Amino acid sequence: MWLPVLLGVLLWAALWLLRDRQSLPPSNAFVFITGCDSGFGRLLALRLDQRGFRVLASCLTPSGAEDLQRAASSRLHTTLLDVTDPQSVQRAAKWVETYVGETGLFGLVNNAGVAGVIGPTPWLTRDDFHRVLNVNTLGPIGVTLALLPLLQRARGRVINITSVLGRLAANGGGYCVSKYGLEAFSDSLRRDVAPFGVRVSIVEPGFFRTSVTNLESLENALQACWARLPPATQANYGDAFLTKCE
Amino acid sequence: MWLPVLLGVLLWAALWLLRDRQSLPPSNAFVFITGCDSGFGRLLALRLDQRGFRVLASCLTPSGAEDLQRAASSRLHTTLLDVTDPQSVQRAAKWVETYVGETGLFGLVNNAGVAGVIGPTPWLTRDDFHRVLNVNTLGPIGVTLALLPLLQRARGRVINITSVLGRLAANGGGYCVSKYGLEAFSDSLRRDVAPFGVRVSIVEPGFFRTSVTNLESLENALQACWARLPPATQANYGDAFLTKCE
Repeated sequence: MWLPVLLGVLLWAALWLLRDRQSLPPSNAFVFITGCDSGFGRLLALRLDQRGFRVLASCLTPSGAEDLQRAASSRLHTTLLDVTDPQSVQRAAKWVETYVGETGLFGLVNNAGVAGVIGPTPWLTRDDFHRVLNVNTLGPIGVTLALLPLLQRARGRVINITSVLGRLAANGGGYCVSKYGLEAFSDSLRRDVAPFGVRVSIVEPGFFRTSVTNLESLENALQACWARLPPATQANYGDAFLTKCE
Repeated sequence: MWLPVLLGVLLWAALWLLRDRQSLPPSNAFVFITGCDSGFGRLLALRLDQRGFRVLASCLTPSGAEDLQRAASSRLHTTLLDVTDPQSVQRAAKWVETYVGETGLFGLVNNAGVAGVIGPTPWLTRDDFHRVLNVNTLGPIGVTLALLPLLQRARGRVINITSVLGRLAANGGGYCVSKYGLEAFSDSLRRDVAPFGVRVSIVEPGFFRTSVTNLESLENALQACWARLPPATQANYGDAFLTKCE
């Protein structure tokens, strides 16, 4: 009775380990990554740079870009990009084209994202949601559409960093909404660009230590939310609320 | 072997039929519905009006509102609402409050929605996605947040009309993205307002004959998309594309 279960678990673990050991062979292909100021974006840029890739790293802030450039080889180039600004996206796409030319773009990693306010829905405004959707959903959509021609040239791939919260709406706020949307976009994109040899993947991280899961900034955002609430709403969340949740 | 399967199917069908026969008893409670110009919104407004509910119906167009008012009883009231315009939403919320007062709002049905351009992702722009998200995701979010205090007064319920395309990204365009997002919002809202006695449901229609699935307007939108494409992209979708899809 227990033997098949045990064997199944072992097989699953073995395949999991095998899968996680897979990595791209060293290459000098071009990869464009958004949100390289910190977190996954910065780590990936440095990792791929070490392996010989020609990394085109976009950062939101000049200090993020300078800091990354100092840590990387001269193969890596940085540019500034605000994924919510269509003009900034167009400039970045042109910048990428000057590097990749007819070779095309091997990889696009849509990594830039923000947590926004994560808290009880009644504390939030439409704008709180809009701001997060703008970065996390419309950001990658705009960047992908702008770079698709270059990706098609190289029969490249798009990697969208979504989240476990793109499958499970575990909290209030725009984050889950934005990541659910990005999952939908990734899936339809996958089907629509497959005929051109462009592949699409998603990565769904859990709670890793990046700026998105920084407890201090999450709490600050929540405190600011609380402070702007009308007294009547604040009164809903006193001791009586804790009783209701029991 | 087949008997348990057959019994299971019969039981499932019986429970399904039983569930679908359930309906609200006649009532004079207040229900606010968005997008009552046509489709589900208009049908629901008239149905609830017949059953004695005090329907507060919002329409996007004056002609939609007049048309509905003519078909309904004098219990039903209409207002104009553009769910993408925060000021219009605030006005509508104040208008609802003048009717419901201390009784509060028994039901909010977030029905307003658009299809936008449904077509191959590489034909689309960021704006195509933004427009649909603005109506289908940020619209219901804004309306819900504005009416929450009135819903709490009546320990009411929110019904969000999502779509089967909120679970399956079957096509390119903003529609699936927007409906995935609305599913996430509905789920976190459900948890966040439960302590106040407010319940949240979703309805996920398939392909019903409403303006959202009107083939003529979908084709017109797609033709307009095609016409604005650069010749290089158009060339990707000739006979060679059909071969790639085989």
